[in-house]
Amino acid sequence: MITMIVLRVGTLPRVTHIAYLSYLCIVNGATKLTSSSIKMALYQGVWILLCKLLGITLGAPTEHGALDTTVDYDSEFCHPLVIGHRGASGYTPEHTLGSYALAALMGADYVEPDLVMTKDGRLIARHDNELGLTTDVHLHPEFADRYCNKTIDGNVVSGWFTEDFTLAEIKTLRAIERIPDIRPGNARMNGAFEIPTFKEIIEMVKSLQTSQNRLIGLYPEIKHSTYFESIGLPMEKLVVDILSSYGYHGPEAPVYIQSFEINNLKKLKTMTQLRLLQLYDSKSMSPYDQVVAGTGVTYGDMATPEGLRDVAKYAYAVGPDKSYIIPRDENNNLLNATTFVSDAHAAGLKVHPYTFRAENNFLPRQYHNAEDPNTPSVIGDLDAEVRAYFAAGIDGLFSDQPNIPIRVRPACKPKQLYAETLPKVKSTQAVNV
Amino acid sequence: MITMIVLRVGTLPRVTHIAYLSYLCIVNGATKLTSSSIKMALYQGVWILLCKLLGITLGAPTEHGALDTTVDYDSEFCHPLVIGHRGASGYTPEHTLGSYALAALMGADYVEPDLVMTKDGRLIARHDNELGLTTDVHLHPEFADRYCNKTIDGNVVSGWFTEDFTLAEIKTLRAIERIPDIRPGNARMNGAFEIPTFKEIIEMVKSLQTSQNRLIGLYPEIKHSTYFESIGLPMEKLVVDILSSYGYHGPEAPVYIQSFEINNLKKLKTMTQLRLLQLYDSKSMSPYDQVVAGTGVTYGDMATPEGLRDVAKYAYAVGPDKSYIIPRDENNNLLNATTFVSDAHAAGLKVHPYTFRAENNFLPRQYHNAEDPNTPSVIGDLDAEVRAYFAAGIDGLFSDQPNIPIRVRPACKPKQLYAETLPKVKSTQAVNV
Repeated sequence: MITMIVLRVGTLPRVTHIAYLSYLCIVNGATKLTSSSIKMALYQGVWILLCKLLGITLGAPTEHGALDTTVDYDSEFCHPLVIGHRGASGYTPEHTLGSYALAALMGADYVEPDLVMTKDGRLIARHDNELGLTTDVHLHPEFADRYCNKTIDGNVVSGWFTEDFTLAEIKTLRAIERIPDIRPGNARMNGAFEIPTFKEIIEMVKSLQTSQNRLIGLYPEIKHSTYFESIGLPMEKLVVDILSSYGYHGPEAPVYIQSFEINNLKKLKTMTQLRLLQLYDSKSMSPYDQVVAGTGVTYGDMATPEGLRDVAKYAYAVGPDKSYIIPRDENNNLLNATTFVSDAHAAGLKVHPYTFRAENNFLPRQYHNAEDPNTPSVIGDLDAEVRAYFAAGIDGLFSDQPNIPIRVRPACKPKQLYAETLPKVKSTQAVNV
Repeated sequence: MITMIVLRVGTLPRVTHIAYLSYLCIVNGATKLTSSSIKMALYQGVWILLCKLLGITLGAPTEHGALDTTVDYDSEFCHPLVIGHRGASGYTPEHTLGSYALAALMGADYVEPDLVMTKDGRLIARHDNELGLTTDVHLHPEFADRYCNKTIDGNVVSGWFTEDFTLAEIKTLRAIERIPDIRPGNARMNGAFEIPTFKEIIEMVKSLQTSQNRLIGLYPEIKHSTYFESIGLPMEKLVVDILSSYGYHGPEAPVYIQSFEINNLKKLKTMTQLRLLQLYDSKSMSPYDQVVAGTGVTYGDMATPEGLRDVAKYAYAVGPDKSYIIPRDENNNLLNATTFVSDAHAAGLKVHPYTFRAENNFLPRQYHNAEDPNTPSVIGDLDAEVRAYFAAGIDGLFSDQPNIPIRVRPACKPKQLYAETLPKVKSTQAVNV
């Protein structure tokens, strides 16, 4: 087929030739020619040469290769990166448009939606597929008969599940605060927000990018991948397709896709050049897809220098629980930093630990509120904890209170999306009309 | 000049004629021809006829007339209107982009910025020109020498004043919670947000309009008008010009301009067709411009049927303290409704009372939290108070917790900005990619 097209090319004008050749480079790349015949090998060599001359990258061969870690794909942002965990979930119920907007308006570089599936195959933002923890579903008698027990990732869970609700039904629910005892200030907003779809989040973030005149990244997590695949609701292609439909392609797009599982990230690596982040749970635990496959691989194994090098084959970054980087002693105070960050960096991985939270309940003892160290809901010295982690060399972090790491990191002005000379920016400047 | 153009029109094709005629209708309207000569009167008659035939409204002649109160200029919104007071100031520090975004994302029809002036003539959002109440200016030693006493609207005030700071200086400050004892949940966000300019607010609201696919109105209040004029920083033209530069013109624009003073509203009436709202403080008080003019007119005078008819000559709506509509008895419980709403309606005025707040501290005794009626910061039954006011026939209200009146009013879907068939909306619909 290629030969035929090559022969035809000779009869067309020069510009058309280049267009055709570009097209063939892509087609050729995509078909991944590996024929052992000398003739085909020669053809392949000629094509690679032609494509190099045209400056076109063969999509397929490099798509699955390692990203160039010497490139700072986050150069538009301030550093270390601040990721608004579930939005600004320290201040408003998590995974609501309100929460993501607050994070973005406080200056978070990325906002982080967790994604689960509805019965009719839509991606919505919830931390869990169980709805009772963070919605008012218990106030809806029409859904009482959907309460049930399920085994999710090996754990028995009781409640209402997103996969048993259509999006239209989910849209009749309202978000509530997950931890009202720790965050009574958030619980004041119980019922104020809908459960957002992934698309609604992307559209709001893109809108705020315009008014804030800076890039605001998306950091979606695919939750319970193996489980959703097992019930006929696979997520990976849907996530990539939706991001693609909004123009997010390639490693330079302000997107990370994260997961606690391994095989779905490896599969994603064959589907997209968007950057991937491997999440790490406790060292003794195994990613659920590995449990199913019976490999015995634990997160602890994946945190060794060798394990990190394996992860670097598919992931651009790692998202460890923060105790991988600075463990705590038996009194709940910080110990010295481990070699995790340098080991990950040596493997070419960026390091974005989770989760930085300002309340006593979550802080090392040494940073509890000095005046009231024993009330779990009181705000302690997250600034100090963040400083310790910045000193350990991390590249970014997930925080429920993104304003705090933003004020701790070196002062920085994010790169403007629109040039000073464009009318858009002119109108944001405070000049007399 | 018009005659010359009319003569020329005859030599051009038909489509061009209509374009020219439309142009001339506008030019003619704008020049406000009032010549007493028969010839000019005839011309004017011909122009009015032509313009009517073309369906074009003559802007100038109606600009200073009374608005047609039979028209629902808020037909794109749900009813009664919910105005996010200082944003969603029950949940986040007032007059910040975060506060306005939360209000808009909760579904508020309008967001309400209070406007004051900087030294260099910029409009920023603060409830007061005194900065100590709602910013961290006290933490800035470089501004310590600007602390002073001033007489503002007849009251001696101590602090730091917006008119003594350039916008660049204001931008180094951060917003803090005004009433941290009542709203400790808001105080968690002290320092998280800048002080926004009016333009930044408009740009964010317009961005959120796009992603939310519905109109989000602006309800700016001009603060201390006489005072700012007296120090060479007049506000009215600036407010109108900025709104105009963003495309807000005429009574159908989703904008109200409000003031506690009278003469600036009357002046605005000659400058713009945007709708105006007269605010009412306590009955015994006088608008500050009336104090200066020595007229003796009080808000009580302005609340009589005759007073309301006078207000209707320049204002489209009135914003009374809510006690004008339902007073409280000596035990702080609601009495029966007065005739204020029906008197205002009889005068052709819409009625938008202030301020509906969910904490015990602000509620009538009967709606205090049943389990904890004596703690000022505890959330009581604002739903019930709102129901009482809706029953009294109000057209809208200002609330610090806009989600509450939204859930109390009849269920309603706001009109979409973009038609179902447009790609913008298609991409917001939850369909599989």
